[in-house]
Amino acid sequence: MATNQDDVKLLGAVGSAFVCRVQIALKLKGIQYKFLEENMANKSDLLLKYNPVYKKIPVFVHNDKPVSESLVILEYIDETWKQNPILPSDPYRRALARFWSKFIDDKIIATSIKAVHTVDDEKEREKNVEESSEALQILENELKDKFFGGENIGFVDIAAVYIAFWIPLIQDITGLQLFNAEKCPNLYKWSHEFLNHPIVKENMPPRDPIFAYFKAHYESLFVSK
Amino acid sequence: MATNQDDVKLLGAVGSAFVCRVQIALKLKGIQYKFLEENMANKSDLLLKYNPVYKKIPVFVHNDKPVSESLVILEYIDETWKQNPILPSDPYRRALARFWSKFIDDKIIATSIKAVHTVDDEKEREKNVEESSEALQILENELKDKFFGGENIGFVDIAAVYIAFWIPLIQDITGLQLFNAEKCPNLYKWSHEFLNHPIVKENMPPRDPIFAYFKAHYESLFVSK
Repeated sequence: MATNQDDVKLLGAVGSAFVCRVQIALKLKGIQYKFLEENMANKSDLLLKYNPVYKKIPVFVHNDKPVSESLVILEYIDETWKQNPILPSDPYRRALARFWSKFIDDKIIATSIKAVHTVDDEKEREKNVEESSEALQILENELKDKFFGGENIGFVDIAAVYIAFWIPLIQDITGLQLFNAEKCPNLYKWSHEFLNHPIVKENMPPRDPIFAYFKAHYESLFVSK
Repeated sequence: MATNQDDVKLLGAVGSAFVCRVQIALKLKGIQYKFLEENMANKSDLLLKYNPVYKKIPVFVHNDKPVSESLVILEYIDETWKQNPILPSDPYRRALARFWSKFIDDKIIATSIKAVHTVDDEKEREKNVEESSEALQILENELKDKFFGGENIGFVDIAAVYIAFWIPLIQDITGLQLFNAEKCPNLYKWSHEFLNHPIVKENMPPRDPIFAYFKAHYESLFVSK
């Protein structure tokens, strides 16, 4: 139950798409929170205490009770603070939102991250690029309105922030072709609308340092071979 | 919205842990449904129509509206038919149930299936067995009551049906050691309580033909090398 004395914390790091999901949801709900920046190379005791299973960010902490896994956190936030719903109210539309968000995690994010990291196996890399592109194409065909949530942004839009911001970044750094205006005109248009949404816009990380960080990480993959 | 004239179908196959989850949930809710047995070697047009993305079972169809992904289906059933709740009502306990169910999918089921299939890479197989065993150990420490749901079975218990029925089967067929009474006394006790729960008991597939089916599948992995 949310009260006026809520203690709300988010353990995260600028540059994580999963953390960004939670930040957008909190902003949408108008929830004040304390952002605790984690250094993933030197994890804090608080992170190890609150997420002993995965030791990963984001961890959302509400009155000392931790919740991990970004989609689980989004559901928790939506159930705890009822204003500006993130999920639709109809059970069937809720099921579809959960289905597509899981699809984004499993078929778009996981495969594109694999594609980036398989620098020493061209065939495997191509397979992952292809899988990721095909998944983006499937999602493209699901977008019927301005947003996945209709006229307003919702669960799937927030889950898809990785597509709007991180995939173009990955493409610029790696040269991999996953997504463009020609292949996915709906998604491409959506990504611009989404990133320009006032709530989203003020929660996106600054592009230049994130670009530099991921570029350095990508280059390190070759050096370590 | 559920009505008296509901048309409820489940596309599935006897022997699938994911289908079994949905069957237990439907039985728990007292929902009558038509079971449509799929032959996964020759998928029906209905399956391809209702789950064009994954072409997998289970697919739950309520008044001609399909829902895929077993955990998404469980949530849909719980939101549509309110009797005998599967998820707790408290948002924090709901978040924990979702977290642990995802953990079971990602860290126990996925790794144990990988372990079974990496018959030509002993090192990789051992790694997967270890990961799966460690995850079972973590889950073991989370079990504080008779069931994960407390005195009654709930979301995590249903998600964990794979551990109660399929893991012992896999161990008997492959000789892999993932789970036993010594390593995981709580989970072991739970698995017996769970399989003897009247609702669960009448929904479990018959062991012998399932054993024979998985054994044949396992042996084929060696033949094809």
